[in-house]
Amino acid sequence: MNDPHSAQLRRELVDLHRTLVEAALVVWTAGNVSAKVDDRHFLIKPSGVPYDRLTADSMVLCDLDGRPVEGQTLKPSSDVFAHAYVYRHRSDVGGVVHTHSPYATAWAARNEPIPCVLTAMADEFGGEIPVGPFALIGGADIGKGIVDTLAGRRSPAVLMRNHGVFTVGETPRSAVKAAVMCEDVARTVHLSRQLGEPLPLREADIDQLYDRYQNVYGQ
Amino acid sequence: MNDPHSAQLRRELVDLHRTLVEAALVVWTAGNVSAKVDDRHFLIKPSGVPYDRLTADSMVLCDLDGRPVEGQTLKPSSDVFAHAYVYRHRSDVGGVVHTHSPYATAWAARNEPIPCVLTAMADEFGGEIPVGPFALIGGADIGKGIVDTLAGRRSPAVLMRNHGVFTVGETPRSAVKAAVMCEDVARTVHLSRQLGEPLPLREADIDQLYDRYQNVYGQ
Amino acid sequence: MNDPHSAQLRRELVDLHRTLVEAALVVWTAGNVSAKVDDRHFLIKPSGVPYDRLTADSMVLCDLDGRPVEGQTLKPSSDVFAHAYVYRHRSDVGGVVHTHSPYATAWAARNEPIPCVLTAMADEFGGEIPVGPFALIGGADIGKGIVDTLAGRRSPAVLMRNHGVFTVGETPRSAVKAAVMCEDVARTVHLSRQLGEPLPLREADIDQLYDRYQNVYGQ
Amino acid sequence: MNDPHSAQLRRELVDLHRTLVEAALVVWTAGNVSAKVDDRHFLIKPSGVPYDRLTADSMVLCDLDGRPVEGQTLKPSSDVFAHAYVYRHRSDVGGVVHTHSPYATAWAARNEPIPCVLTAMADEFGGEIPVGPFALIGGADIGKGIVDTLAGRRSPAVLMRNHGVFTVGETPRSAVKAAVMCEDVARTVHLSRQLGEPLPLREADIDQLYDRYQNVYGQ
Repeated sequence: MNDPHSAQLRRELVDLHRTLVEAALVVWTAGNVSAKVDDRHFLIKPSGVPYDRLTADSMVLCDLDGRPVEGQTLKPSSDVFAHAYVYRHRSDVGGVVHTHSPYATAWAARNEPIPCVLTAMADEFGGEIPVGPFALIGGADIGKGIVDTLAGRRSPAVLMRNHGVFTVGETPRSAVKAAVMCEDVARTVHLSRQLGEPLPLREADIDQLYDRYQNVYGQ
Repeated sequence: MNDPHSAQLRRELVDLHRTLVEAALVVWTAGNVSAKVDDRHFLIKPSGVPYDRLTADSMVLCDLDGRPVEGQTLKPSSDVFAHAYVYRHRSDVGGVVHTHSPYATAWAARNEPIPCVLTAMADEFGGEIPVGPFALIGGADIGKGIVDTLAGRRSPAVLMRNHGVFTVGETPRSAVKAAVMCEDVARTVHLSRQLGEPLPLREADIDQLYDRYQNVYGQ
Repeated sequence: MNDPHSAQLRRELVDLHRTLVEAALVVWTAGNVSAKVDDRHFLIKPSGVPYDRLTADSMVLCDLDGRPVEGQTLKPSSDVFAHAYVYRHRSDVGGVVHTHSPYATAWAARNEPIPCVLTAMADEFGGEIPVGPFALIGGADIGKGIVDTLAGRRSPAVLMRNHGVFTVGETPRSAVKAAVMCEDVARTVHLSRQLGEPLPLREADIDQLYDRYQNVYGQ
Repeated sequence: MNDPHSAQLRRELVDLHRTLVEAALVVWTAGNVSAKVDDRHFLIKPSGVPYDRLTADSMVLCDLDGRPVEGQTLKPSSDVFAHAYVYRHRSDVGGVVHTHSPYATAWAARNEPIPCVLTAMADEFGGEIPVGPFALIGGADIGKGIVDTLAGRRSPAVLMRNHGVFTVGETPRSAVKAAVMCEDVARTVHLSRQLGEPLPLREADIDQLYDRYQNVYGQ
């Protein structure tokens, strides 16, 4: 577990938590990022530690049941079981992010999915951002809600009812990107709806935009 | 009063005022933090001094009637009597914070409590954030309004009508945390209500969330 | 005009413009601060110069008709005649600020004064923040609108219809404070009104709050 | 292409992208600035590169059909064909900016132009900010929508339906200014409309304000 890959991943996790702060997606200690290390382990934020005190060493190494491996000095995030469930059931996922970002959580509190009315939403989410069930923290319920809700959808983000946002990605960085984009479109669609009804996008246009963005965009 | 404990507390108060600024809870000089020093004294922000000019030495040492002890060179915050009242009537309180943070104060101006519709609210506040009475500054009225309104509730935050937010904590840092979380949930619930009605949380779920957060969360 | 007082005032003007930027009251080059130097002159921001390129030397010295005195290398703000009119007609004013801060300007675009529903408004403004007439730039109309609207009121701020905010103060710093507080209360009252009707303050309470704040607050 | 002018332009483009970030007009990698170099070429942001990793060398040199000239190591922004179309059809344009800034995009999602109800809008845009058609990325459609919608108008900004903002200018800096001002007025008019109806400006007043701002303002 002290291999170079893991050390680099720990530093990247510190940076990605800072990105959550800079993007105003989290306050105090209420959000976290995790990163899969290998087939049996992932790293996650320690519980209740302020973002400006996070260090590479403070990240907690856990097995896929969410139990810290021997020798960890800090307790993992209390969301650890949700992250673990996702890694157990989605082998394609290399990073998970959780936030209470305000605009997205406002939709979640109403149990209302964010409709796909922006080309940027079609690009990143390939459709609406769905809402998952209400679930209490501490067991498998939140993780199961995330995985079941995302099944068969292109969206890497889910709004958990009355709670907040979970996003997944091939890498922790792509999960953070999805969290940033989720709040951005949650805000723009919220603002648009305040003064009327945004126009829907056609399904065929959403498909074309999503396909191009996933396959042509970037370097 | 020059013991090491007090010196450290003074530096912490300067840092906590900076946290209020960074969290955008205060503008100009309109908010303050105090810290209980011992059974008969507390430290508080000086009146009308800009946050970026606060120093450890500038914090004003007062007795529990809100009177500066001999030798203080600056006048205490004009909210000093509210803080003093809280310390006299709540021996469990080690820190008090006052802000006019915009979303929370918007609820206060309507005399409307913030309903508990987010798991993060259940965690930190254990129910709604209540509104206290309108009270003029300068005497015991604000302090009494705070203490009476918080009595029998789990919330460490109260919205004083047409005025702003007061929060309490075992330590000044936990009172600042409550002020940060209060504005965060005030904003998210406000946003949610703008486009419909957020779903309520069940009382039993609130109890379970609050209990876990207070007893399991953190290190 | 090269006396030490003027040099210090020029540096203070640079700092106060930076305060407008930090408080998010201005974008690009659309806001300005001026400072009275003596009975016949004031200093004002040069026209169209970005805030991060302002220097003490770049401030433009003008007479009370708004004409740059001989030897100025830059043109004054296009709002110079409004500032000049205020100085000519209000000998108690030592500083004037103009912004298009968004929440306050939103009230101005509706021609609607901001009602006094917050203790912080009673403290600083002693009542509602009034709206002045629509007036075109370049002559005496804006200045006359400011002076006439503020006459007989305690508010140091006026919303000019479809335009923005002007504030006055004994010093440029107190005018900047009024501009910061104006946007803060414009925002909080806006937010409060979005979900209902804020409760009014009683006239007698406003009087008592204003009196105390002006005479007791600060060092 | 390695002449001093081009090197300076590359550095300026890096700075202007930073301005978009500081003005909160863009998140992650979703916005771009381009600059015309000569009659046959322009420089544009590389696709999918984070703003804090942009360097002068990373800017991609393209011909007016949007094809990278030989020797470029990075792919241009996926919006390159829209920029290219504008340069081909508007020889007066030296810079183009694209953002998804939230308030302006909220108007775009409703297919609703921003009415000219602020003197600052009359100054910069000379009337309403219009909405262009929905168009898919990758061909000439977006560019044609921009050029056709701006034809015969004074506004340097257009809201592309369900998409975002494009602005043009004589220089890249003036196009960035238009993007900053567009979001600023989109926000203020949005806020004003939330609580009622902003008063319209008279056409003759808009003309006079626009004329003065274009010809008298600045140094």
